Amino acid sequence: MNKPFKTSRFFTFEDHESNARGYCRSFEKVFVKAKGSSVWDEEGNRYIDFLSCCGALNYGHNDEHMKAGLIDHISRDGIASGLDLYTDVKRDFIDAFYRLVLAPRNLDYKLQFTGPTGANAVEAALKLARKVTKRTNVITFTNGFHGVTSGALAATGNRYNRMAPSIPLTGVTRLPYDGYMGDGISAADLYVKMLEDPSGGIDPPAAVIFETVQGEGGLNIASAGWCQRIVAAAHRAGALVIVDDIQAGCGRTGTFFSFETLGFTPDIVTLSKSLSGFGLPMSLVLIAPEYDVWSPAEHNGTFRGNSHAFVTARIALEKYWGGSGFEEAIAVKAEIVTNALTETARNLPQARLKGRGLMQGLDVGTRALASAISKRCFDQRLIIETAGPYDEVIKVLCPLTIEVDQLEEGLGIVRNAALELSGELSFA
Amino acid sequence: MNKPFKTSRFFTFEDHESNARGYCRSFEKVFVKAKGSSVWDEEGNRYIDFLSCCGALNYGHNDEHMKAGLIDHISRDGIASGLDLYTDVKRDFIDAFYRLVLAPRNLDYKLQFTGPTGANAVEAALKLARKVTKRTNVITFTNGFHGVTSGALAATGNRYNRMAPSIPLTGVTRLPYDGYMGDGISAADLYVKMLEDPSGGIDPPAAVIFETVQGEGGLNIASAGWCQRIVAAAHRAGALVIVDDIQAGCGRTGTFFSFETLGFTPDIVTLSKSLSGFGLPMSLVLIAPEYDVWSPAEHNGTFRGNSHAFVTARIALEKYWGGSGFEEAIAVKAEIVTNALTETARNLPQARLKGRGLMQGLDVGTRALASAISKRCFDQRLIIETAGPYDEVIKVLCPLTIEVDQLEEGLGIVRNAALELSGELSFA
Amino acid sequence: MNKPFKTSRFFTFEDHESNARGYCRSFEKVFVKAKGSSVWDEEGNRYIDFLSCCGALNYGHNDEHMKAGLIDHISRDGIASGLDLYTDVKRDFIDAFYRLVLAPRNLDYKLQFTGPTGANAVEAALKLARKVTKRTNVITFTNGFHGVTSGALAATGNRYNRMAPSIPLTGVTRLPYDGYMGDGISAADLYVKMLEDPSGGIDPPAAVIFETVQGEGGLNIASAGWCQRIVAAAHRAGALVIVDDIQAGCGRTGTFFSFETLGFTPDIVTLSKSLSGFGLPMSLVLIAPEYDVWSPAEHNGTFRGNSHAFVTARIALEKYWGGSGFEEAIAVKAEIVTNALTETARNLPQARLKGRGLMQGLDVGTRALASAISKRCFDQRLIIETAGPYDEVIKVLCPLTIEVDQLEEGLGIVRNAALELSGELSFA
Amino acid sequence: MNKPFKTSRFFTFEDHESNARGYCRSFEKVFVKAKGSSVWDEEGNRYIDFLSCCGALNYGHNDEHMKAGLIDHISRDGIASGLDLYTDVKRDFIDAFYRLVLAPRNLDYKLQFTGPTGANAVEAALKLARKVTKRTNVITFTNGFHGVTSGALAATGNRYNRMAPSIPLTGVTRLPYDGYMGDGISAADLYVKMLEDPSGGIDPPAAVIFETVQGEGGLNIASAGWCQRIVAAAHRAGALVIVDDIQAGCGRTGTFFSFETLGFTPDIVTLSKSLSGFGLPMSLVLIAPEYDVWSPAEHNGTFRGNSHAFVTARIALEKYWGGSGFEEAIAVKAEIVTNALTETARNLPQARLKGRGLMQGLDVGTRALASAISKRCFDQRLIIETAGPYDEVIKVLCPLTIEVDQLEEGLGIVRNAALELSGELSFA
Repeated sequence: MNKPFKTSRFFTFEDHESNARGYCRSFEKVFVKAKGSSVWDEEGNRYIDFLSCCGALNYGHNDEHMKAGLIDHISRDGIASGLDLYTDVKRDFIDAFYRLVLAPRNLDYKLQFTGPTGANAVEAALKLARKVTKRTNVITFTNGFHGVTSGALAATGNRYNRMAPSIPLTGVTRLPYDGYMGDGISAADLYVKMLEDPSGGIDPPAAVIFETVQGEGGLNIASAGWCQRIVAAAHRAGALVIVDDIQAGCGRTGTFFSFETLGFTPDIVTLSKSLSGFGLPMSLVLIAPEYDVWSPAEHNGTFRGNSHAFVTARIALEKYWGGSGFEEAIAVKAEIVTNALTETARNLPQARLKGRGLMQGLDVGTRALASAISKRCFDQRLIIETAGPYDEVIKVLCPLTIEVDQLEEGLGIVRNAALELSGELSFA
Repeated sequence: MNKPFKTSRFFTFEDHESNARGYCRSFEKVFVKAKGSSVWDEEGNRYIDFLSCCGALNYGHNDEHMKAGLIDHISRDGIASGLDLYTDVKRDFIDAFYRLVLAPRNLDYKLQFTGPTGANAVEAALKLARKVTKRTNVITFTNGFHGVTSGALAATGNRYNRMAPSIPLTGVTRLPYDGYMGDGISAADLYVKMLEDPSGGIDPPAAVIFETVQGEGGLNIASAGWCQRIVAAAHRAGALVIVDDIQAGCGRTGTFFSFETLGFTPDIVTLSKSLSGFGLPMSLVLIAPEYDVWSPAEHNGTFRGNSHAFVTARIALEKYWGGSGFEEAIAVKAEIVTNALTETARNLPQARLKGRGLMQGLDVGTRALASAISKRCFDQRLIIETAGPYDEVIKVLCPLTIEVDQLEEGLGIVRNAALELSGELSFA
Repeated sequence: MNKPFKTSRFFTFEDHESNARGYCRSFEKVFVKAKGSSVWDEEGNRYIDFLSCCGALNYGHNDEHMKAGLIDHISRDGIASGLDLYTDVKRDFIDAFYRLVLAPRNLDYKLQFTGPTGANAVEAALKLARKVTKRTNVITFTNGFHGVTSGALAATGNRYNRMAPSIPLTGVTRLPYDGYMGDGISAADLYVKMLEDPSGGIDPPAAVIFETVQGEGGLNIASAGWCQRIVAAAHRAGALVIVDDIQAGCGRTGTFFSFETLGFTPDIVTLSKSLSGFGLPMSLVLIAPEYDVWSPAEHNGTFRGNSHAFVTARIALEKYWGGSGFEEAIAVKAEIVTNALTETARNLPQARLKGRGLMQGLDVGTRALASAISKRCFDQRLIIETAGPYDEVIKVLCPLTIEVDQLEEGLGIVRNAALELSGELSFA
Repeated sequence: MNKPFKTSRFFTFEDHESNARGYCRSFEKVFVKAKGSSVWDEEGNRYIDFLSCCGALNYGHNDEHMKAGLIDHISRDGIASGLDLYTDVKRDFIDAFYRLVLAPRNLDYKLQFTGPTGANAVEAALKLARKVTKRTNVITFTNGFHGVTSGALAATGNRYNRMAPSIPLTGVTRLPYDGYMGDGISAADLYVKMLEDPSGGIDPPAAVIFETVQGEGGLNIASAGWCQRIVAAAHRAGALVIVDDIQAGCGRTGTFFSFETLGFTPDIVTLSKSLSGFGLPMSLVLIAPEYDVWSPAEHNGTFRGNSHAFVTARIALEKYWGGSGFEEAIAVKAEIVTNALTETARNLPQARLKGRGLMQGLDVGTRALASAISKRCFDQRLIIETAGPYDEVIKVLCPLTIEVDQLEEGLGIVRNAALELSGELSFA
């Protein structure tokens, strides 16, 4: 087959990189530079970024303060990688996290630094819950996404990812997430009934793990009431409650932790993605002290001490969570998103607003339409992705720090794309 | 309990960090700076580093060229984290890896960038082999270490790590590694017999995975003959051959890949640790093209595009593997290590030299003695760790780039520590 | 400890038999003789049998025709145990089963004789469905009971049985059975949605297995509509439909197979319990011919050819299913049971009629009350057991051949026991 | 396709029975009668039986005393199937088993009656060992055969049986059986080393399960020394020792239990096959009293109380194990077999005698030759099967009660068949 001429620019990737690559197929440019909410390709085109490295860049690209701190650290030959040895920058991060995040929220957690991927944090959390309870079963929910290593993948609902290994993914029981069974039918009722029924076939659980807003699953949100019932039943059953806040945490829903407004406190929390503030790999498992039963080095890994990330993570906390005003700013932008998407939805018969905070989107009904909108937006220099079981949700995941006019510019591109495609579709 | 005064310097860690922390218990200082083969604690003490971030710093700390390249990249707002989007720095890395590593060795592999931990690379490799073969069983070996996420942990032999999760780790069959059954008894014979016996109870394997030098397992080495028999039988059985070169690769054994001198070519290779050159999290799975059957994004992860690592990794390849002389330099130092450890062994009745290249060590017979030597060395400002099933092996894992006099200084510290302790023990 | 005097009669059992024994603890007599619907203990007391060996004696004890046929077979040195060799008595059974059961119902199944326990038939059915589909996941339902060997136990919901082995029971997904979520909420809707949702977390199933009336699970019944939706969705998903008719089959619900009136045809059916007619161990898996992909002896077992059972099984088919009238007789008795239990329920505030055919019972609300009723009945010489997740259901499982007056006598004992206990409870 | 005429006699089976049938393909006759060591087909041909229902008819077919006792029991309406209720015939069996088997051998076991298949007994034994130890891993051996239900199949080495379900069989570690690695290499050394090595990758075992003579695996025998080392290491590791005596027990090796001469006492023993004496389904798990931790009915099953089997089983014990002389008679016949097979082996270049007691056979090197011998014998009216990983072993499994002249007649048929085929082969 003659490859089209256009591929020549990408031949390095096409010739040498595995077929496993994904996002580059939707956004087929070579990117070279990024700042704030903007990204540039090698032809000099500027894009608005509504993807934010899948939520790993909540504070935008190359924040000036973090950048300066990181360059300073590197320049003075600071530790780059420190295993789990004690280092000054790790100490500074821990102190900042305690002072700026935990203490003000009256939260008491031990910090476990795991291998710097979200999946690794989830693996550690599940492993610990199983060690604490000496049980194997973990309750997880429809449309949950927790990573693709074997243990995390078992907890993940996505069939596309699940089927790859041709090995059964065991140790979990999946139940319907809040709202899954439709309005007026309580998924929590079913959960509680099956869990507590001696013949319901659910083995005593080590843990319940869930996202309060399902990022990859399509921006489904859990209500405070649902969460509280799930949590209470879990605790009655002797199970630990794990909140996977990898995507919804670090301010994405409007507060540092996504669960702050939901009336419960998890036993274990997983953080990653935006934790380093700069897009550098870093993960953290927060553990209620009574459950910190790890033996030394029981869950280890070479890159637990990615010190560059500790430097930027500390600065991110100090800059954004040290004072007041950040949560309010997020709220203002979230309302702008709500309004814009609501208006856009009016032009799409079956569209439905989903999510909360700066983790909102539009269920447009079909993969075809969502994909077409994403593509049209990219032509208009907006990077925006889809999510949901059928990739039917257009997902606005802009930096929390985006300027209001850039946010509105991006939302305008989405609205126009939706409008045009809707029109084209209705004429088709 | 009154905590001893000394702990005050570490109270941030002791109060807030999980019990999972490990290395910091053996080397209880706060480290602040590192350069080449030296590390400094916050009191200004300099240490010789024979640990090298567990093999993640084969080129030493804060290499000047990588450092300059990285600062330049950050300064000009280069992409920090790019998912699996196309970026200039990723393209440059791929090109360099192809040109400097694969092509000169007549190796043909596709590159899969996974989540930036070794365990994630192993998970991807196992998953892919299972997808290719539609089989689940993977053959692994006594004392193998492949990471602690569920899939990788199943392949890992270490009971201490295995027992944490209280969930059975399935999908593997473990057989004796080369030399495990003692001299003159072929572990390969047993492997071949059980594998090919229709009633041997080994289900048809998807893959065989092994390290050619077992890093954590105690510096056991696989002979060329053993490898070739294992590989041939694997291929007869329709299984893929995976070499986990996470610790033994990137020059550690004297050549870029550890298997270059062993007369076989793996179907899949996992790399991580020293791949970025600078200690930054990065992992790579090399896949023989015919087995690159991944669907797009089937095995995904947020930090697959740690662009800072791509920058330093490219410079590392250009600096160390672009010309000649590096392999020879490693060989010279390896011989220095061999000689020094051989001499040291003479003073320890049951000591035995293990490993090859700059991945050598001394089996001193007991955990107690190995631990005492490590501790004594640290008092003398040498950081050196133990390995092996009983932590009975003192493991010299210095940077490949260490200066000869610093190497000899470090080896002298080891020799003295061993000598003194041996003397003390014999008087006891 | 001084054992009470009364135990002396049972010391052989108490001294030598494992604690695993169960029913003998509720009905603590030594039984020596049985005929029709009556059983005698060694003191000469006669009991009415509403237990029928848990549904394995649908035609009552020691039927004269089967008894004569069996004695004749033994007397002439007929084969007792024939593996899966061809024997005359096996041929006669197969011919009778085809002629009297399959052909009249337009059913086309291959017959697989498995090890003579219900669990073994279930193991074979699950294994075959997995072989046919090359999938591992099996959908099973709350309160389902399919046996206690590992594969069957995975499909069983009962926690008491599930927890014994301390090994995870994998390969199944459990969903709510018809009616489980309460009136007006369709468990079939949830089943279909989760099954067909690409992110619902249900791996493509090999099979769906269910009982149309859950015997051990508390006499829950599946409606025709529910069954048809479940079956249609299973077939859309490429899964086989297995009906476990071990307890509900052989006429127990009024027709030979329990699914005859429900508007669907399973791909695989398991039979056991009353199949031999005489209480002798025998099991059968019926397989739609296109799915009979077994290789020879792939699922084997020594006692697949229990020839004594073949003799009595054939006679049972000829006697009860060869002519007309048997189904009508069951229907008459079923109505008597319905009426009697309905009346009894009036005296128990929360009692609820459950089941269908001669597989009916009364949910009396609590284990305490159900247990007390069972005990009171036994004092009045009626053997009747409880079922359900909380053992809260009194279960009438009389022989289908019971005389009407004996049936009414037994039902009267139940009514009186319930009445008395209800009175005592209300005074308490 | 036109079916060949010859099939007409078997059309009932060929049309209606599942492809799973096996033995009938090798011995394609319809059998109608059996007595002692003889079986008759429907054409009136008499066969000598060296198969004995795979070891389920150690006392031959239709023993007169058992037959009379069974007919008497049926005639007087004795209980046919009693669940685990107390019955007179169960009590009589227990008393006889205690008095005639356990007490004289100074063995102290509780008796658990399981579902009446060997696989079910194995499932119960594994489940109990896991319950006792709260561990999941079970050590099993190459060529072991323990049944085909999921739990038992995991312990079974045979790939042909293992591959059917397309579900991973987990919870076991397989090690080489005695002699597996060839002469002079101790499989016990490897077992002990891997088990006790903290990085050997064997999780702490719940149990070790093995046959002292591997029936299906090819008549491999375990030496007393190997057994004792295996047992000692198991006990050091906190594991229970299970002997699967389903085929090798009930006198087959010369003593009631196969382990009596091997210098150790198992913690759990499984019995089935010849236990009932008459070929009726019956199984028993013997449990050292301190491990009888079952809760009531935790491992249940409908046919645990196959009372017909209790009747014949008791008579078998009284007749054969109540006095002296039976063991001596077996020994005499075993020596006859040894001599005859040794002589036969002389004519087959690579033939090798295997097994012990009346569980001996000849490894003739290939499946083709073994199969041809079996077929030739059947033409000469001797029923004899093959075993071993390649079906390369001709297996003499005559009734223990066979008359000497009939034994010699059968052995002569084997010798002639081997001789002729050897001659034909050498001319080919």
